[in-house]
Formats: sequence, C-alpha cells, structure tokens
Amino acid sequence: MTILYFIDILGTMVFAISGALAGRDKNLDFFGIAAVGLITAIGGGTVRDILLGSTPVGWMNDLIYLAMIGAGILISLLFGKVVRKLRRTFFMFDTIGIAVFTVLGLQKALTLDVHPIIAIMMGMVSAVFGGVIRDIVCNEIPLIFRKEIYALTCLCGGIIFILMNKLGMDQTYNIILTILFIVSFRILAVAFKWQLPDIK
Amino acid sequence: MTILYFIDILGTMVFAISGALAGRDKNLDFFGIAAVGLITAIGGGTVRDILLGSTPVGWMNDLIYLAMIGAGILISLLFGKVVRKLRRTFFMFDTIGIAVFTVLGLQKALTLDVHPIIAIMMGMVSAVFGGVIRDIVCNEIPLIFRKEIYALTCLCGGIIFILMNKLGMDQTYNIILTILFIVSFRILAVAFKWQLPDIK
Amino acid sequence: MTILYFIDILGTMVFAISGALAGRDKNLDFFGIAAVGLITAIGGGTVRDILLGSTPVGWMNDLIYLAMIGAGILISLLFGKVVRKLRRTFFMFDTIGIAVFTVLGLQKALTLDVHPIIAIMMGMVSAVFGGVIRDIVCNEIPLIFRKEIYALTCLCGGIIFILMNKLGMDQTYNIILTILFIVSFRILAVAFKWQLPDIK
Repeated sequence: MTILYFIDILGTMVFAISGALAGRDKNLDFFGIAAVGLITAIGGGTVRDILLGSTPVGWMNDLIYLAMIGAGILISLLFGKVVRKLRRTFFMFDTIGIAVFTVLGLQKALTLDVHPIIAIMMGMVSAVFGGVIRDIVCNEIPLIFRKEIYALTCLCGGIIFILMNKLGMDQTYNIILTILFIVSFRILAVAFKWQLPDIK
Repeated sequence: MTILYFIDILGTMVFAISGALAGRDKNLDFFGIAAVGLITAIGGGTVRDILLGSTPVGWMNDLIYLAMIGAGILISLLFGKVVRKLRRTFFMFDTIGIAVFTVLGLQKALTLDVHPIIAIMMGMVSAVFGGVIRDIVCNEIPLIFRKEIYALTCLCGGIIFILMNKLGMDQTYNIILTILFIVSFRILAVAFKWQLPDIK
Repeated sequence: MTILYFIDILGTMVFAISGALAGRDKNLDFFGIAAVGLITAIGGGTVRDILLGSTPVGWMNDLIYLAMIGAGILISLLFGKVVRKLRRTFFMFDTIGIAVFTVLGLQKALTLDVHPIIAIMMGMVSAVFGGVIRDIVCNEIPLIFRKEIYALTCLCGGIIFILMNKLGMDQTYNIILTILFIVSFRILAVAFKWQLPDIK
C-alpha cells in the first residue's frame, strides 16, 4: 500500500532524527551522531530480518531509506534546537512511525511462515529495537526497559492484528484498525502517565 | 534424545529466571524484566544460529521455549524472594543447563558442517552468550569476562566431546560424559573458588 | 591476491592485540581478555556477513584467522608492556589493517550484488565495527563515535574505490590506490590532529 510505504520512510526519518539528537546529547562528533541516527532508524528492522534470516536486510534493497535517514541526520544537525521545540509534532510522527513499523514488521514475518506469536514479537522488535540499540550504544540501560509503555503497546497492537486476521477482517481495514489502536493507546498512555508497575 | 530436550527447556526457564532477577535488581519495570529474561534465555542460541546462518533462529520453531520463558519470568516476578533463597537448587539447574546447552549447541553446529573447532566455540556461545547480552543490556561489563570460570568449562567440555567423538565413543555415552564433566568441573570451581589469573 | 590475504590475517592479529590490551585495561581475567581480543578481531567482518546474509560467517571457513587471533592474544598477554611501547609500529599495522579490511569488505559485498553505496558502507563496517563492539562490551561509548576520524576515512576510501571502478581502473591498481589513500589520510589526520567538529 502506497500510504504505508510513505509513512514507513517518514517514520524512518523520524527515528533517525531521534537517534541523532540522542547522539548530540552525548557530545558525539559529526560521525558519531550520524551513526547513532542510522542505527536507531534501521536497528529494529535489521534485528527482525537477521532473526528471520531474511538477508540482505531490508533497507539494503531500497536506497530511499538511507536517503531519508541522511535527511533526518541533516535536519537534526542543522535544526536540532527547532526540532526539540516541536515536541508534539515529533511525538505524533514517532507514534505513527512505530505503529506502521509494527504492522509492516508483523506482515513481513508472516510472509516468512513463522508462527503468529513469533510474528507479533517481530512486529514489536521492528518498532522498538532501534531505540534499544541506540541506548546500548549510548551506554544507557534501554529506556523501554525502564519506564515506557511503548513496547507493550506494539505487542497489543500485534495481537489485535492477528486476532482480526483470524476473524477474517479485510486486511486494509485491519491495518488501519491496528495503527489507530497503537496511536491512540500511546497518546493516552502519555497523556495519563500510564506506567507499568515497578517490581520491588 | 527426550531427556536432553527436557533439560534444554528446563535450562531455558532457569536462564529466563536468572535474567528476570537481574532485571529486577536494575529496577526495570514489568516489561523490562520480561525482556531481560527473554534475552538471557534465548541469547546464546540466537547468536549461535545467526553466526551459523541457521535461520529463522531455533526458538522460533518450537513455541515450548517461549512458554517456558514466560513461566520463568512469572516465577521470578511472583516468587523472586523465594527463588533467591534457593541458591543451591538454582545453581544446580543453571549448571546442568549450561552443560546441556553446550552439547546441543555443539551438535547443531556439527550438523551444519563447520570445523570441529568452530563447533566447540558455538557450543560455548550457546551456553554463555545469553548472560553476556544480559550484562550488556544491564549496562555491566559481562560477568564471565571478569571472574567466572564458566566459559572455560564449556570450552573444555566441548573439546572432550569432540575428542571422544573422534575416538569413536558412542554418542549417548559421550553426551553423558561431557555433561558430567561440565557439571562437576563447575561445582568444583565454585566450591574451591578456582579462578583464572588476573593479568596485571 | 596473496598480498591482500597476508595483510588481512596480519591485520586480524593486530586487531586481536588491540582488543586484548583494552581487556587488560579493564582488569578482565584471562578468558575475558581473550574474548575481547576475539570479538575485536572478528566483529567487523561478522557484522558485515550477518547483514549481507553470507553465513556461516567468513572466519569460520578459514581457521588461520582464529590461529592469528590466538597468537595476537598470547602476544598481548606475554608482551603487553612491550607492545604498548611500540605505539608507532602498532599504529602503522592497525592503519594498514583497516585499509585492507575496507577494501576486502567492500569487494565481498559487491560479489553479493548489493548496491555500490551499500558496499561502501559494508567496507567501513568491516573495518570499524570490531572496535565498536569492543567498546560496547567494555562498557564505553564507542570511541569512533566520539573523536576519531577513522570511520570517515574508510568511507572516503570506499567511495574512491567505487568511483575508480566505474571509471574502469584496473582492479589491482585500484586496490593499491584505495589502500594508499586510507593509510595516508589516517596518518595525516593523526599527525595534524584533524577532527570532526563537535556539534554544540
């Protein structure tokens, strides 16, 4: 679907921006910032493809991804301060991005004939693992392991997609439903500060 | 062999528990604890399969592994304090677990036609890499790089297995011998505080 | 080309030495030092091969690599202090090593039919990723993300190689040219303290 592809490459750029900004916060040099931006943007899909054995990994087959990542890195180098002020816009793009990454990752896994439960996990991995690697490279404990409800949202979205699929829902509607679910759930989670319980 | 398979999935659960407990020590939230438990349990086999190109990686083909991991995570969330008190029992399961992981990893590598030396390494990787990734994710220098004789034990076990194999020992006996060696060596290493020399 | 192969295995040993020395600085035990040496030496090629789906990864097919790594680890255990004093010699080997790694990585990617831009990236990954993983394992933010002009040099070398290739230059000359470029650029960068700008 053209619209999914469009959001996918846009989401990739948003991830590159978020990675590059994290690199700036760590006082990396030009190259380090670009590297963290790149890793954040492609990390999730790369880990998914490697686990599934779908290599060369996806972004190698379509240079538009690298181009969008390059653009994202440039944007965060040139307009970093502006981007940080556009928190809300940025948050929306990021949220739509992970929703689309989840659905596309899940679909890719399904085409490779793995069990639906594995496909749900791969959807989540596609969406969140870029951020995990970003945090590891930046020498932090991955954020999503500490306080974001982020990953769980993708997991629930994936479950909904698979369930609706089994129930025979039309795929286009199912995609829209899943994306809407992930986006609204995350907005609500942030708005009302939903948090998973700490275990003491 | 049924018994090996049984210990394998039990060992997977023990690894998930040890990972989840490490996550609790780092004050991760519910999801983070589950993620570290999962990564610890599947990390070794996943790295082995990726290096050997045997994808989709092993645990994707048999959902019993994920189920056991889920159980292990639940156990460490609900009964974490009890589990910590059962140090000895836990240590025994962990030790038998790495012994079995070593043998199974080595055998899998051999079926993929790599050199026996590579197979020995892959046996060790299967057993120890889950813990390595656990420590990296938790922002620690991997424990086995610092003071455990753990990895060396798996390496020696692997060498014994390959040697006995060349000498024509029956495979079942060989598996039992190797597992016994790894288990006793590790118990002795811990009991007598064997340690590799620090290099100053 | 025999000479390339020779430098490749020598470079592998130099990387193993640099990794093992980093492990010593972190007070790792014998096994930890060997592990970091190994990871540093094979990390770049391993990541490249996994991303490209060329598995079992390269070093598994030719045991000379493991032998050279073993020798490198031994050297840094026995003669660590001497090696540290030979900074210049060591630097030269390391520099020639990354130049050769870049060219060989790039060529391997090209044989797998990826786009030249991807091949350039894979050349760089081959040369620098061992060091990146070394730093992650040692719980540091990767050095090349902070102040080395290292990775950019490999990237430029790769671009030159691809351009000259398109222009029809004989491959042997092209390899020599690219290696000379990377080596001289890096020597100049260190001599004149070239640095990428920090972004504030």
